[in-house]
Amino acid sequence: MTAKKAEPQLHARPAGPAEAPSAHGVEVIPLGGAAEIGKNMIAVRSGDDIIVIDAGVTFPGADLPGVDLIIPDFAYLIENAACVRGIVLTHGHEDHIGALPFLLKRLSAPVYGTALTIGFARERLDEHDLLDRAPLHVFEPGQRITLGSIEIEPIRVTHSIPGTVSLAIHTPVGLIVHTGDFKVDHTPVDGKPFDAARFAQLGDEGVMLLISDTVNAEKKGWVPSESVVGKVFDQHFGDADGRVLVTTFASNIHRIQQFLDTADRHGRKAVIAGRSMIRNIRVARELGYLKYPDELLITVEEMDEYPPRDIAILTTGSQGEPLSALSQISRDSHRIRIRPGDTVVMSSTPIPGNEDAIWRTVNRLIRLGARVFYDLLSPVHVSGHANQEELKLVLSLTRPLYVVPFHGEPRMMQAYTDMVTAMGFDPDRILWLDNGDRLWLDGVDAELRAPVPTGRVLVDGISAGAVSDAVLRDRRHLATGGTVVVTVALDESTGEVLDDPQIVSRGFLHPEETDGLFEEAAELVVQALEELRSGGGIDDENAGTVAKDTVSRFLRRRTGRRPVVVPVVMEV
Amino acid sequence: MTAKKAEPQLHARPAGPAEAPSAHGVEVIPLGGAAEIGKNMIAVRSGDDIIVIDAGVTFPGADLPGVDLIIPDFAYLIENAACVRGIVLTHGHEDHIGALPFLLKRLSAPVYGTALTIGFARERLDEHDLLDRAPLHVFEPGQRITLGSIEIEPIRVTHSIPGTVSLAIHTPVGLIVHTGDFKVDHTPVDGKPFDAARFAQLGDEGVMLLISDTVNAEKKGWVPSESVVGKVFDQHFGDADGRVLVTTFASNIHRIQQFLDTADRHGRKAVIAGRSMIRNIRVARELGYLKYPDELLITVEEMDEYPPRDIAILTTGSQGEPLSALSQISRDSHRIRIRPGDTVVMSSTPIPGNEDAIWRTVNRLIRLGARVFYDLLSPVHVSGHANQEELKLVLSLTRPLYVVPFHGEPRMMQAYTDMVTAMGFDPDRILWLDNGDRLWLDGVDAELRAPVPTGRVLVDGISAGAVSDAVLRDRRHLATGGTVVVTVALDESTGEVLDDPQIVSRGFLHPEETDGLFEEAAELVVQALEELRSGGGIDDENAGTVAKDTVSRFLRRRTGRRPVVVPVVMEV
Repeated sequence: MTAKKAEPQLHARPAGPAEAPSAHGVEVIPLGGAAEIGKNMIAVRSGDDIIVIDAGVTFPGADLPGVDLIIPDFAYLIENAACVRGIVLTHGHEDHIGALPFLLKRLSAPVYGTALTIGFARERLDEHDLLDRAPLHVFEPGQRITLGSIEIEPIRVTHSIPGTVSLAIHTPVGLIVHTGDFKVDHTPVDGKPFDAARFAQLGDEGVMLLISDTVNAEKKGWVPSESVVGKVFDQHFGDADGRVLVTTFASNIHRIQQFLDTADRHGRKAVIAGRSMIRNIRVARELGYLKYPDELLITVEEMDEYPPRDIAILTTGSQGEPLSALSQISRDSHRIRIRPGDTVVMSSTPIPGNEDAIWRTVNRLIRLGARVFYDLLSPVHVSGHANQEELKLVLSLTRPLYVVPFHGEPRMMQAYTDMVTAMGFDPDRILWLDNGDRLWLDGVDAELRAPVPTGRVLVDGISAGAVSDAVLRDRRHLATGGTVVVTVALDESTGEVLDDPQIVSRGFLHPEETDGLFEEAAELVVQALEELRSGGGIDDENAGTVAKDTVSRFLRRRTGRRPVVVPVVMEV
Repeated sequence: MTAKKAEPQLHARPAGPAEAPSAHGVEVIPLGGAAEIGKNMIAVRSGDDIIVIDAGVTFPGADLPGVDLIIPDFAYLIENAACVRGIVLTHGHEDHIGALPFLLKRLSAPVYGTALTIGFARERLDEHDLLDRAPLHVFEPGQRITLGSIEIEPIRVTHSIPGTVSLAIHTPVGLIVHTGDFKVDHTPVDGKPFDAARFAQLGDEGVMLLISDTVNAEKKGWVPSESVVGKVFDQHFGDADGRVLVTTFASNIHRIQQFLDTADRHGRKAVIAGRSMIRNIRVARELGYLKYPDELLITVEEMDEYPPRDIAILTTGSQGEPLSALSQISRDSHRIRIRPGDTVVMSSTPIPGNEDAIWRTVNRLIRLGARVFYDLLSPVHVSGHANQEELKLVLSLTRPLYVVPFHGEPRMMQAYTDMVTAMGFDPDRILWLDNGDRLWLDGVDAELRAPVPTGRVLVDGISAGAVSDAVLRDRRHLATGGTVVVTVALDESTGEVLDDPQIVSRGFLHPEETDGLFEEAAELVVQALEELRSGGGIDDENAGTVAKDTVSRFLRRRTGRRPVVVPVVMEV
């Protein structure tokens, strides 16, 4: 199946006119989120008009020690800053809005989104003191926004955060539909279902390109409606004789609404723990996305005035984040203390890479005496991403000429490709893109043009400076072997070794084990340096190299370990 | 439910005679594998006779950088070495035999196991040059071994490696049944099914304690038979127009047999890649556990003489191990090179923590043009551990007085406890143990006695020395922040700062970014040291502390980062 790589299938694209591709066309350029999950960002360019869709971050795994965030490389946008007509956000998740502060530091452009999305974006920009960098505009599904020669039309869809939209992108050469993240929920908590009819109408108008979510393309069937979780909450809140603690993603406002409704229905007062949970509830309520009576909420301090049977607690920490409320609770180092009889509901699914931390939290809670429910035991969570039947529905409704499987790893793109090929979709019209690829479309043909600079930028510390690969290599080496510093003082004029070399270590071996070892190493260094001096010239450079090599070789031979050996030569 | 913690339920143990517990009793002491997965080891003591069951290792996660293996703490066994009558191995997996070389370095005792288990143990001991340390004895299921006052009887069970046994441990005060790892397979590949009848007979005799596998206690129903996988192989081998690559655990001899049989059935020659796969196939075939015609196997070099349709490849790397054959193949750096049309079958399940590495391998293989099948897409793997219905069956057959949920994390112990409680088993007789706990049994009562020293020993490098917590803390800090070394030369007599301090770093910031920064820091260090000198006494100790604090504070303020700052003071 040649459909799997962008290049072969684009070389084999349907025969168009023999002349060079028309100058009238648009380019779709993923800058993040192609063949990966996270840091979503796509540029769509028509002539001198560029619109940016989403500006997401992703979070690093253990292979990137000390890195806080990963953001897309903005080089292409900065180079073409004068063309950027607007930044359009599909929804308020971090992997779609988290890079906005970093982007707006580099260029200014109006930002568009639904009220909740803009509400969350405003909070991020406020934290970075960047509120004056760009006007923030709220749009409603169905409302068209003109950005140069491109018109954007948000379409109401359902996802694990309210105010999520797909985008119909009306360009001079044809219509692009970008699903963004979605599921097809006909009974959502806020009564605002997936707008299937609008997708069908767009299909009638003719869709040149569908850019489709693929996160759950490996999963058969349909994702259950979000409202199913409320019924499961009902059961656990009813069964529990003690307090119920629920943890979920702080952005899952529908889930939070269901928590609050269930608590109210069962006569339990609600306690909210965790900074981001408290902040998001405030923002969502102010904007009308969350409704509850004032008297439902009580503070942690007030909790002791009620019997455990009358308490429900909502906390952050569904991903086992070490500083989160739930993680602290599980280590018994939070004001909320677990007692036998407490029920904990993990209303979430592990984000890949977080499994260890989550299970450690669960195990600690069980040891403290809690009864813990998680998705292996009880349907306490549903996904926000479409399964196969929903993905097929959107393809059937929109009937596009081309499709780009987006926002998934290659394995999900493979599953999507197999699925739509089985539906009869022409494999040559399934386009696999990498970040930086310029997909050129004129309404008939598709072509891959020379890519733009792209990549990931690793953000570390408050300085928000980028972390280089060399630095990361050193960190990984330091992590596995520790460091050994060997300091040599040489006489500035004679090159003689003054005093014994000093050797100290961190993260290498226990000090008890190193004493004799380092003495031996120091003697070898002195010998090697004396040889170097008598053999001709000694300077700080070759002395450093010799000291380093001598110590490295000796330690490897004697301990089997390879610390990072740092030589320091002082000439005095 | 007080059953969840060992202490409360043991305090509330069924009322026995009022006098002190009888001196006639046995102790069950988990030294690894209690409330955790991995490094299985249990001591059973009757008077002065100790038997050791299994000696397993486990592999560290990302939180233990530079650690190669985790083994149990042998302190209790070493202290009581004279009492150790034998080491009994239930099967040949690393988490049951991998610590044997480390244990036999510290004490000598005869080792017992089935032929394959002893075969694999012999290989491990040979690698460590320890074959002369202990006699290795092969036993057969049903054959009783007398070890002092304890008699051991292996019972044939099924698992993901042949030659697996449960143990009936006949002690002077009663019978203990230790399931070890098992599933209930009535149609195993080697025609040697789970011996349900023997469990029932032991139940008739009266079982004082059942120590039960709990790894899959969260999972409902029954695990399908291993032979199911052969049918799935058949389908993929038949469907594939090109080569088929299968990866699985190198110890899964049944799976390997099914691979070889399927290749033979489909007229495909078999190629074996990966050192451990080749070694295990050799050992298993020599011992009669694996059967195939000589002409089935060809070498990688011979492969090109056959059309792709006639080739099947078996490789290591099912866990994404970076040095494995499959990982190299996925990076296109192996003699076996993926071509479009190849089918890869991941006949395994991720061991927790390996998910990232595995999916990276899968994604690379897809990008190279392979069609990849894994358990989300096709039933290409079955577990070797019993699901709930199988666990219930063993409890029903043995009808024990007490049960210890073993070889699972607390969440699995919780699931097991709920399950058997729902069967009507008295929750007060479900005993949760931690490693080191001494469970004393006299045939009627159970009591928890003061624990023995226990824990995990982290093995690092060929020296097999232990890694201390302080060293690990430093390594984690080094991994996230890198290191900055500040070297100061002081005049031995006056304490004056000679020359400028030298500051170098590794894994901190890119050198371009540090130049100006380190100059400023060096000036601050000189100032601080001069103040120290003029303020009274300066010595190498306080000078080091001042240099370190000055640099740490400055870098934190200017960059937001916290490297490990190492001060070196030279007095010359």
